[in-house]
Amino acid sequence: MEYKLLNKNMTPKEIASLSEDERSLLCKEIRDKILNVVSKNGGHLASNLGVVELTVALLSVFDYTEDQVIFDVGHQSYAYKLLTGRFEQFDTLRKKDGISGFPRISESKYDHFDTGHSATSVSAAVGYARANELNDKNNHVIAVIGDGAMTGGPAYEAINDLGHRKDRVIVILNDNTMSIGKNVGGLAKHLSKVRLSSGYLKVKRATEIFLTEKIPVLGKPVVAMMLAIKDFFRFAIYRKAPTIFEELGLVYYGPVDGHNTKELINALESVKNINAPVLLHVCTKKGKGYRYAEKDPSNYHGVSSFDLATGVNTTKSDEIRNFTDCFSKNLIDIANKNRNVVAISAAMVQGTGLTDFSERYPTRFYDCGIAEEHCVTMAGGLALGGKVPVVAIYSSFLQRAYDQILEDCCFMNNHVVFCLDRAGFVGPDGHTHNGLFDISYMLVMPNMKIFVPCDYEDLRLSLKQAINKEEGPCSIRYSKSSEYKLEEHDIFEPRVLADKGRDFAFITCGPIQKQTDRAFEILKEKGYRGININLCSIRPLNIDKIFELVKDVRFVFTVEEGIVPGGFGSYLSDLLLEKGYKGHVRSLGIKDPMIRCGTLDEQYRQAGLDPDSIADNVLDVLNKR
Amino acid sequence: MEYKLLNKNMTPKEIASLSEDERSLLCKEIRDKILNVVSKNGGHLASNLGVVELTVALLSVFDYTEDQVIFDVGHQSYAYKLLTGRFEQFDTLRKKDGISGFPRISESKYDHFDTGHSATSVSAAVGYARANELNDKNNHVIAVIGDGAMTGGPAYEAINDLGHRKDRVIVILNDNTMSIGKNVGGLAKHLSKVRLSSGYLKVKRATEIFLTEKIPVLGKPVVAMMLAIKDFFRFAIYRKAPTIFEELGLVYYGPVDGHNTKELINALESVKNINAPVLLHVCTKKGKGYRYAEKDPSNYHGVSSFDLATGVNTTKSDEIRNFTDCFSKNLIDIANKNRNVVAISAAMVQGTGLTDFSERYPTRFYDCGIAEEHCVTMAGGLALGGKVPVVAIYSSFLQRAYDQILEDCCFMNNHVVFCLDRAGFVGPDGHTHNGLFDISYMLVMPNMKIFVPCDYEDLRLSLKQAINKEEGPCSIRYSKSSEYKLEEHDIFEPRVLADKGRDFAFITCGPIQKQTDRAFEILKEKGYRGININLCSIRPLNIDKIFELVKDVRFVFTVEEGIVPGGFGSYLSDLLLEKGYKGHVRSLGIKDPMIRCGTLDEQYRQAGLDPDSIADNVLDVLNKR
Repeated sequence: MEYKLLNKNMTPKEIASLSEDERSLLCKEIRDKILNVVSKNGGHLASNLGVVELTVALLSVFDYTEDQVIFDVGHQSYAYKLLTGRFEQFDTLRKKDGISGFPRISESKYDHFDTGHSATSVSAAVGYARANELNDKNNHVIAVIGDGAMTGGPAYEAINDLGHRKDRVIVILNDNTMSIGKNVGGLAKHLSKVRLSSGYLKVKRATEIFLTEKIPVLGKPVVAMMLAIKDFFRFAIYRKAPTIFEELGLVYYGPVDGHNTKELINALESVKNINAPVLLHVCTKKGKGYRYAEKDPSNYHGVSSFDLATGVNTTKSDEIRNFTDCFSKNLIDIANKNRNVVAISAAMVQGTGLTDFSERYPTRFYDCGIAEEHCVTMAGGLALGGKVPVVAIYSSFLQRAYDQILEDCCFMNNHVVFCLDRAGFVGPDGHTHNGLFDISYMLVMPNMKIFVPCDYEDLRLSLKQAINKEEGPCSIRYSKSSEYKLEEHDIFEPRVLADKGRDFAFITCGPIQKQTDRAFEILKEKGYRGININLCSIRPLNIDKIFELVKDVRFVFTVEEGIVPGGFGSYLSDLLLEKGYKGHVRSLGIKDPMIRCGTLDEQYRQAGLDPDSIADNVLDVLNKR
Repeated sequence: MEYKLLNKNMTPKEIASLSEDERSLLCKEIRDKILNVVSKNGGHLASNLGVVELTVALLSVFDYTEDQVIFDVGHQSYAYKLLTGRFEQFDTLRKKDGISGFPRISESKYDHFDTGHSATSVSAAVGYARANELNDKNNHVIAVIGDGAMTGGPAYEAINDLGHRKDRVIVILNDNTMSIGKNVGGLAKHLSKVRLSSGYLKVKRATEIFLTEKIPVLGKPVVAMMLAIKDFFRFAIYRKAPTIFEELGLVYYGPVDGHNTKELINALESVKNINAPVLLHVCTKKGKGYRYAEKDPSNYHGVSSFDLATGVNTTKSDEIRNFTDCFSKNLIDIANKNRNVVAISAAMVQGTGLTDFSERYPTRFYDCGIAEEHCVTMAGGLALGGKVPVVAIYSSFLQRAYDQILEDCCFMNNHVVFCLDRAGFVGPDGHTHNGLFDISYMLVMPNMKIFVPCDYEDLRLSLKQAINKEEGPCSIRYSKSSEYKLEEHDIFEPRVLADKGRDFAFITCGPIQKQTDRAFEILKEKGYRGININLCSIRPLNIDKIFELVKDVRFVFTVEEGIVPGGFGSYLSDLLLEKGYKGHVRSLGIKDPMIRCGTLDEQYRQAGLDPDSIADNVLDVLNKR
């Protein structure tokens, strides 16, 4: 496709002065570009296709060089990026040193907040609005948040504060009736009721046309004013009962058809100058404009590269292709025999591999919305009630529940099993999504057992152990990468993968063993003979046996796919020193977690965890002494 | 006072069969007991006095041996404890090995969840209800939550989930129009509107009396049924618009006078068997029954021992008596010159010392409710907008915002200053409130500077540095204990407090220096000569200088009032080893954070951080080698 408008890097004025036909063309071009790049690079598709008209309308009414638009989560910011100076670079989407799949302040001055985790946009917008007010700046601050993210507690906290202090923030509720999977929660039903309340859209549209077109003398300012007078206008004509947003102190306006730029522009003009916090309810369709994605948006949430003409490959397979598949299959096997097992998801049923479980055991499955904190405390209650809850949440998202893991599970020694998918590097999503902190935060938790499987058999055994045999909190972390197959599978014993000498020792956990093994080979080629050990359970730990294995080694190198402070290495170092180990332990892991998008291999290299860097690190130390 | 009823350890049946007069007497006895014990031991007073009738009514309707009552935060559980077998031990409230000031599953089988942090009760209750359902148990689960805690995101997440899945949970909203200080947020206004909606209480009462007394043939089951039919009965007669709880899928009932046991019992009987999630709105008065506390509940939230006849001493003083005072005074001084400084509280304005600031700079002060997550993200927005937000939150409560500190502040290098009060042991509140994790969680945060003042001058200098000179995120942790005065105040340099030899070295941060100094003296008496170093800034760190000071010492002992994994000790150990230090670093800190209530000294002893234990630890190591 030839891009007639999109390649122009339009100024705010140029966008604002587009005709309706031009806006249509622009939307078409944006969709085409997104589809082309995402089908090659992978990325978030359905959510980005859903907000094309909304973004064009937003930038028609607001000045992107002055006003501040903050996208919640950020997986709906592609159109915004394309319209704010990043069309040329867009082919580098999600590649190393390329355009991020999320807003990044380091990438453009028009990105105002780094997002990635859910339900932060309203808080960030409130912060900006308060700063602007103190700075006597009169620009607009807009948060665009999905109905899924609206189930997150922090969004509620922000709206509660905003409704109280009445800052001038426009919250755009992008209601696509989905988060990543099907949406859940009382809020979803509330929004559906609002959408469906009788004659709603029809009356609204008619009234608007009546006010702005049939009585042109009234003009937009009057419409805006009337819209702001709740009981006189909106309340009386549109609805019987106010929305919860109004109850919390916001001016509510909507719902508006999110794929009609004219209607969107009218609505945005109406709310633009209301001197109060406003929530504009916009209804959009995920995947809009690409029939496969419209039909099955869940499968087009985050995609790898795919063929545009035929869509993504959704053939189900019994084959275990990754740790998620392995978790999925084994959890069902265990739950089949142990009726106490229940499973919990935070709006990521498919991503965490719980779809099959949810279909097989619907009464034992809970999708609690994007609500990691509630999930974990609720799991604490389930455990005290005699169940064995398995909480499957990506490592970086579980950061949200640090306090709940500690206070609501570990202090009471509740038997909750945390399954941390995407632990370690995640590739193109970059630093906000890398799961690098979990070993460190799990190690401070009292009573917490920690398993780091290296292959699928390790995961199967860890899961069985954690669910059927342990009594307190357990965590199992596994990677987005595939397994690295071992021969031994005693999960509680150190597995000696090679024992060639005592020049150095490697102690590794998880599939980063693959990189370690290669480093071991490189060192062997250079004449160094060491011992190479893998651990699956890092707590409990057979420290006596490890001590025996390494006591004559002067330098132990731990290797982990996680942050160095408080990680596996420093934990092992403390234990070895206590045992009386007289050598030195060096932790090889991530020192600086600001590792942006790229392939997994690029991320390993950047972190110094590729085989060459690991070997170099060892050589450095050995040669110095 | 002689306790005629309270000392009987009544069974559920006995409580249920009390006459109205007996209930009045029981309430009186409970208040008397609470006042007597709290005035001696200190504790949470106003909140506990407010729920006496509610607790008596709850235990008249529900069977405490079968049903599960979960108190949010738990600082309103004293009456419950007194009525569930803990009258005799109640004099040990908040003392070592005594009755905790919060529900504790280890203390009684009638406590169902350890609480302390806000907004967890609904989640825990939902967990219990789901377990009960799967276990085919037909008992009741009740969450008692204040309107303050209801501003917390996790409570919203739980209600959203509950309203969707329709579990049989009774949520009792204890609406006292306050959290710890004055309540804030859109929700507060919503509740106030509900309370005040015209003729509300009057109509409700009349209808109820009409139904249950004038037409006795109807009976309670019918009333219950009618109450459950929203549009027919409650909605039509009581109110014009539904509450947000109804919008989220709960059956709403109320408000009810929380100091009228008869009315409470009627209401509880009515909602008891509704087969849906219910929210019962109860209005109570904080401090009820003790005139000083009724008049000024904020000052009677958490109290030390005081004279019952004259009330607590609230004389204001210009004197700096603790770190909080010091923070309070210096923040104002700094903000006076630096107009960009703004301050943020999470519903703890008085506790964190921000009252003066909030009065002096109302436009630069934000109390966001019990909403730590929103506070931190909002601070990130303020910082990006050019302000210097100072976020003052207790160390253990800031655990709630681990993810937000990381993703919304540190990754973007936002200049947010975190002031962590109550870092270290807190004494009688016990393990849920001890601030032992912050050094460990701050050390994983990229770009985070960390200051640990030892005395007030250190705090003043750290605050000035963090606000006026640093550019990225900073944290300052200070203790509930008072300062330990130093002579040197270069916050970036190691302060050598004693340099007597090289048998061992102490490296300490914060006022635990007091215990370390005494241990140093003990060791001197035993013939060991060491070097004694205190650090204020632990990141950045002048590691070269520290290395020079300790390079000839075989054993370095770090001492910290925090958790060992990932703490100050392991951090320093890594840095020293990298420098080429050939000795050994031993971390003295908290290994097991389950340290329950007691005095600060008792907690130091239990953790092995009293002078004798520190010295013994050193002797152990020195004698072994």
